[in-house]
Amino acid sequence: MRSPESIADHPETLLARYRTVRATSEAICAPLATDDYQLQSITETSPPKWHLAHVSWFFETFLLKPFDPDYRPFHPRFDYLFNSYYETVGSFHPRAQRGLLSRPTVEEIYRYRAHVDAAMQRLVLECSEGDWPALAFRLVLGLNHEEQHQELLYMDVKHNFAVNPLRPAYFDRAETVVSAQARRQGWVDRPGGIHPIGASDNGFAFDNELPRHEVLLREHRLADRLVTNGEYLEFIEDEGYGRADLWLADGWFSLRQRGWHVPLYWEQLDGVWYEMTLSGLRPLSLAEPVCHVSYYEADAYARWAGARLPGEAELELMLADQPLRGNFVDAGLFHPRVAMAGDGQWFGDLWEWTSTPYGAYPGFQPLEGSMGEYNGKFMCNQMVLRGGCCVTPQHHVRASYRNFFYPHDRWAFTGIRLARNE
Amino acid sequence: MRSPESIADHPETLLARYRTVRATSEAICAPLATDDYQLQSITETSPPKWHLAHVSWFFETFLLKPFDPDYRPFHPRFDYLFNSYYETVGSFHPRAQRGLLSRPTVEEIYRYRAHVDAAMQRLVLECSEGDWPALAFRLVLGLNHEEQHQELLYMDVKHNFAVNPLRPAYFDRAETVVSAQARRQGWVDRPGGIHPIGASDNGFAFDNELPRHEVLLREHRLADRLVTNGEYLEFIEDEGYGRADLWLADGWFSLRQRGWHVPLYWEQLDGVWYEMTLSGLRPLSLAEPVCHVSYYEADAYARWAGARLPGEAELELMLADQPLRGNFVDAGLFHPRVAMAGDGQWFGDLWEWTSTPYGAYPGFQPLEGSMGEYNGKFMCNQMVLRGGCCVTPQHHVRASYRNFFYPHDRWAFTGIRLARNE
Amino acid sequence: MRSPESIADHPETLLARYRTVRATSEAICAPLATDDYQLQSITETSPPKWHLAHVSWFFETFLLKPFDPDYRPFHPRFDYLFNSYYETVGSFHPRAQRGLLSRPTVEEIYRYRAHVDAAMQRLVLECSEGDWPALAFRLVLGLNHEEQHQELLYMDVKHNFAVNPLRPAYFDRAETVVSAQARRQGWVDRPGGIHPIGASDNGFAFDNELPRHEVLLREHRLADRLVTNGEYLEFIEDEGYGRADLWLADGWFSLRQRGWHVPLYWEQLDGVWYEMTLSGLRPLSLAEPVCHVSYYEADAYARWAGARLPGEAELELMLADQPLRGNFVDAGLFHPRVAMAGDGQWFGDLWEWTSTPYGAYPGFQPLEGSMGEYNGKFMCNQMVLRGGCCVTPQHHVRASYRNFFYPHDRWAFTGIRLARNE
Amino acid sequence: MRSPESIADHPETLLARYRTVRATSEAICAPLATDDYQLQSITETSPPKWHLAHVSWFFETFLLKPFDPDYRPFHPRFDYLFNSYYETVGSFHPRAQRGLLSRPTVEEIYRYRAHVDAAMQRLVLECSEGDWPALAFRLVLGLNHEEQHQELLYMDVKHNFAVNPLRPAYFDRAETVVSAQARRQGWVDRPGGIHPIGASDNGFAFDNELPRHEVLLREHRLADRLVTNGEYLEFIEDEGYGRADLWLADGWFSLRQRGWHVPLYWEQLDGVWYEMTLSGLRPLSLAEPVCHVSYYEADAYARWAGARLPGEAELELMLADQPLRGNFVDAGLFHPRVAMAGDGQWFGDLWEWTSTPYGAYPGFQPLEGSMGEYNGKFMCNQMVLRGGCCVTPQHHVRASYRNFFYPHDRWAFTGIRLARNE
Repeated sequence: MRSPESIADHPETLLARYRTVRATSEAICAPLATDDYQLQSITETSPPKWHLAHVSWFFETFLLKPFDPDYRPFHPRFDYLFNSYYETVGSFHPRAQRGLLSRPTVEEIYRYRAHVDAAMQRLVLECSEGDWPALAFRLVLGLNHEEQHQELLYMDVKHNFAVNPLRPAYFDRAETVVSAQARRQGWVDRPGGIHPIGASDNGFAFDNELPRHEVLLREHRLADRLVTNGEYLEFIEDEGYGRADLWLADGWFSLRQRGWHVPLYWEQLDGVWYEMTLSGLRPLSLAEPVCHVSYYEADAYARWAGARLPGEAELELMLADQPLRGNFVDAGLFHPRVAMAGDGQWFGDLWEWTSTPYGAYPGFQPLEGSMGEYNGKFMCNQMVLRGGCCVTPQHHVRASYRNFFYPHDRWAFTGIRLARNE
Repeated sequence: MRSPESIADHPETLLARYRTVRATSEAICAPLATDDYQLQSITETSPPKWHLAHVSWFFETFLLKPFDPDYRPFHPRFDYLFNSYYETVGSFHPRAQRGLLSRPTVEEIYRYRAHVDAAMQRLVLECSEGDWPALAFRLVLGLNHEEQHQELLYMDVKHNFAVNPLRPAYFDRAETVVSAQARRQGWVDRPGGIHPIGASDNGFAFDNELPRHEVLLREHRLADRLVTNGEYLEFIEDEGYGRADLWLADGWFSLRQRGWHVPLYWEQLDGVWYEMTLSGLRPLSLAEPVCHVSYYEADAYARWAGARLPGEAELELMLADQPLRGNFVDAGLFHPRVAMAGDGQWFGDLWEWTSTPYGAYPGFQPLEGSMGEYNGKFMCNQMVLRGGCCVTPQHHVRASYRNFFYPHDRWAFTGIRLARNE
Repeated sequence: MRSPESIADHPETLLARYRTVRATSEAICAPLATDDYQLQSITETSPPKWHLAHVSWFFETFLLKPFDPDYRPFHPRFDYLFNSYYETVGSFHPRAQRGLLSRPTVEEIYRYRAHVDAAMQRLVLECSEGDWPALAFRLVLGLNHEEQHQELLYMDVKHNFAVNPLRPAYFDRAETVVSAQARRQGWVDRPGGIHPIGASDNGFAFDNELPRHEVLLREHRLADRLVTNGEYLEFIEDEGYGRADLWLADGWFSLRQRGWHVPLYWEQLDGVWYEMTLSGLRPLSLAEPVCHVSYYEADAYARWAGARLPGEAELELMLADQPLRGNFVDAGLFHPRVAMAGDGQWFGDLWEWTSTPYGAYPGFQPLEGSMGEYNGKFMCNQMVLRGGCCVTPQHHVRASYRNFFYPHDRWAFTGIRLARNE
Repeated sequence: MRSPESIADHPETLLARYRTVRATSEAICAPLATDDYQLQSITETSPPKWHLAHVSWFFETFLLKPFDPDYRPFHPRFDYLFNSYYETVGSFHPRAQRGLLSRPTVEEIYRYRAHVDAAMQRLVLECSEGDWPALAFRLVLGLNHEEQHQELLYMDVKHNFAVNPLRPAYFDRAETVVSAQARRQGWVDRPGGIHPIGASDNGFAFDNELPRHEVLLREHRLADRLVTNGEYLEFIEDEGYGRADLWLADGWFSLRQRGWHVPLYWEQLDGVWYEMTLSGLRPLSLAEPVCHVSYYEADAYARWAGARLPGEAELELMLADQPLRGNFVDAGLFHPRVAMAGDGQWFGDLWEWTSTPYGAYPGFQPLEGSMGEYNGKFMCNQMVLRGGCCVTPQHHVRASYRNFFYPHDRWAFTGIRLARNE
């Protein structure tokens, strides 16, 4: 992780960014009823109120306690309740039981946030020059961390609402014209050879994007947009979920064990396909990108389509050539949109599964101390995804950004881009 | 089930009772934060808001819909969400997922209750004379049903709070003098011979208390109070949880699988025993009755003590000789209390495990239609408990009342009374 | 347990019986391939070779070690491997892992048996007069114990073979005329009143049959034969497995969880019903008694048929009036047979589910020491069955004999007899 | 997969090799009792008799049926019983239930093998010239397949014996001098740059070793021998299994869930460490390589040692520089041995965990038809291991050979070689 420019930043500047990020988390929760804050519909998700508390715990643990000798923790047990997985910090509440905490109440958690915010403001403004570089580094890390949890909030609320037979809506979306057609998919030729990947010098990056290093690629081609619901429906109608030869062995096992036969949020009512979205149940748009598919489904679809998934380096190098814009959370749709002319859907819309298992770059060094648990310890059994999605803040991602999920995970905003060797 | 007197009641009288029962359920929830309403800490418990809705669904399903042709259900899906287990009424939301419903919100459920209450008032006041007996019968059943859920509310809230590392209190109890001594336990001689058990003619009774019939008993003796924490601690300190010869085979399996070594809500901090109560964590009183033990623990304790548990008929016949008073919910303690001189703890304090598996009385007839699912289908694998407890309304129980739980259940207010053959 | 007459027996007489019982166990295994000896197809069953060793361990543990100071155990670890569940004797190999022991080999276990047999012969012949009563008591217990395992051998081998897609046969049965008709079922009127049940004075009985005591019954009627496959098929075709109102709640749960839709060993091939038997797969005879049903199925069938299951006392009193004969293992069919004129199927054919949970008789005293674990600790969550079956030795059962299985168990030779109140 | 030289081979030559491979499988089983043939101690292992049958099924399915129109299968259901995982061939017996098949007996399976061998001999000798290349290709594949199962036989028998409290020995090993010291570990400097990996032109290779392609490496160092038991014991004594910071998150979860605290086959008796081997329980040699560790343990050890695991390309390139010799099955030890002077343990001894997730090489093409299920569908969630082990036939491996196991697997002969960047 590195944030050279941040360290150079003036405390006031960073403090303003702090306020914005913190306010954004709360704004995301504004449409929720108190009832919605506590739900954990699967072990992988967390209750919204837990997210709100945990990101505050991060500032408390990695900034306030080390840098402010006078800091008084809000509550002696929050250390236990809101530590996510930092084994080296201390014991923590089991992940699967985050939904069993009716106390602290939502109201208390907002007071906890205010307590932390006040202390953070003091800390930043009164920081000594000697402490500033280390503190600024951790502050920027904390803000990026909170932005990641903002994305999780959208994902998790969607899942929480989707398991409810009432299929509630997080927000009311204006009726969209679902008749839009996606443009025809073409291919972009990409060169082989030796290329650098990984975070470049300017700006913040997580430790897992480093060190920048060279990779050797072969010539290949990338699809110039994401796979659509209509295309994926063809796969389904061609018995895609019934043909073992299309699937990885572990994928076939998941499919049978979990009864997969469509993407996560699809359901059929009276012969019509619907999709659960953050604006409730909507008729499925065939033109929109297919989303909430596992790696196994993406991989099987690609095999069925006579293609493959891109490698993470292939995708990063393509992203590095693109302007950083797309359908991000800033657009307010919270859903991928139809690929129109000129839109390659490179950034935004959906996190794109790559065929690359999440691992360490050669020479990788985790952060020192407990922050070293941030990324490195997850470098096994997960797959890399790239490009950000419709609930990611635009400024949060970059070409070198590495997201990762287990191959069976489906509740993230994930999609499929095809690739080919020739 | 039978309620001859109720049918003779004037509608206004029953309506007054309806209002009281309904208000009581809401009063029980008054100390809860909105956050507390949705928690389901184990599959056996239900979220408070689910209880509040389900008891209303009962009136809606068994009274409003059959008797009021103009009744408009509050919400088309509540039938699915708040049916508990009535397979013959229709499909229902899986029990284990009751805690996953953030919607309807608590506020909506209170509106649902008001909607049902208004419709019930109309129904009762405008009921034809011809319908009245059937309607009155179901109304009284519905009220008894809601009272049962009131008791469940206390049990479930206690469990929900106990899994929370903060150990919150449902109410603040005045400091009790924990130095009280329980009086010495003596024995009551009870005669053998043929005796009638089951509900007698006067007053409401559930179908499982009928028909009244004769049983043949042998002479025996019953302890004249419940087993105390202090006595149970001796069992623990005598390696009671480590001696397989004291346990039923299934009990020993449960003990090892679940890691039991003390009653459900005990914990030791710095060498001192504490007990989670509805008023939070309190130092264990050795004089108070031991509670939240499973049948297996009660049975093992009795064996260790050289005694046995009473049969349900033995206990019923004793209860029938006692005045209907004791430490019920009306006392406002929500916890069993020390047995003082003259207090046999026959009614109230704790549901007493009997050695009798829950089954049908000879000639048992379940209620007709879906109401037949109320009791009869549970007559397997559970054990009978008698006498009511500290969260039961006093007027709700009677000598013939049969409660039942699985032998491994511990979250109810259960306790131990010893018996002997000689 | 009591065996007054045995104690009076001459050692030579008992020794002859010992030899017969021991030889019978080995004869039962004669048709098995070495491969068949080690299989444990479900946790409830045991590998044949484990049965052969365990019954020898019983003699070793309860007779040879206590009574013969010079006895040299065959192998130091057999104590651990072949103790079934006697917690007070010492630790033992987990039940679920009995099928994972390829060693000792079958050949070694036969040598173990011979070693025990030789030592037993010495022990019996050289026993002092003072030791004889205690030793004879245990010897008779050990023989009854081995006879119980003989029955388990048939049950377990049947299950082991049934899970094999090849559906092997344990023995070749001569083609039976399956066209036989069962006679029409009638009812036997039975009186109410006070009656004694439990083991009477003459002959061996297990501790759970004691003490003999009086029970109070109501007038009732018992079906004069078992329910047939044909009758049960009507239940199936009437959607018996699809109607929740017919089932106990726990039964309905089992049915859905395990996918029950027919009795354990039925399967349909090309529209024809077959039944797995110890002589392999055979077309289902509609006239034969339905077997391998759980208590839940028996109970649901009875409810569907407008009847109920008998209580254990009702059945015992009827059995006490019948001659002790029927289709036992001695007949060599290893399968229930069609009820012909004059055959009430009271004894033999199938263990009959009763509606009585297995529990202690009033005044029950388990055997002293580790043998006390024989019966008493299982007195919870199981149901009593009566009358013996087609793989029980005729002399092994009696009217007061109490068998017991969990209500979901289906691999025993269990059947259904109906009862009615009027 | 490719086997150019084999196709050129004369049928007689290949047939001789066929006979050798087939005889070797049976020789491996010679020390087994009939009882040992049927055991499946965990889902991942298979009973020896299943291995013997499955490899024959492979020849039956992929050679005899397609090439010999007159071939009569030995048994109509063996297709179902002995298909391992070829979904496109047809349905198959569930993996977890392979241990539940007492029939066919061991004797029948040997007859099955003889039947297949006779048919194979005919097929090879009478094959038309036109068919020969395709047939020879599949024959060589089948022989390599059977060799893989030979290795599995050793692994699985070891596990089957290790779960037995008697700790039986597969063979009696002459007493080894366990006082041998391993030489001091040094480092081999390895160059960076672009290098080719993957199977080269000469000789058989599996499809997953192809296509040969270039990789870009950085300079690095490889340990010149495997990690020893003594070194690993230091890790244990330094609380290696108790320090979460050393472990991947999934590894830490496995460790806690499965209770890992030593390698798979270690146990401590009276304070002395022992290790289960194919010659039974032996005192742990501190000088021998540590074996039967999971990827998670290998990775945690490397982190503790301030090093890392090698990448698969790094190891392949090193192996390509080494002579193909080492402690293979041919040595008859069935256990890794102490690294003496000059022995880098590059080939043989133990499969070495690499840090590389098992995936497709760029341009990978699975075999056509059902044989395409051989390797490709497992390219997810597993890690690559290199170099062969002490139960691998020497001629079976090569520098490009890719073995793969799940990161939690421990029953294979796996070990640890360290690497460093500098």
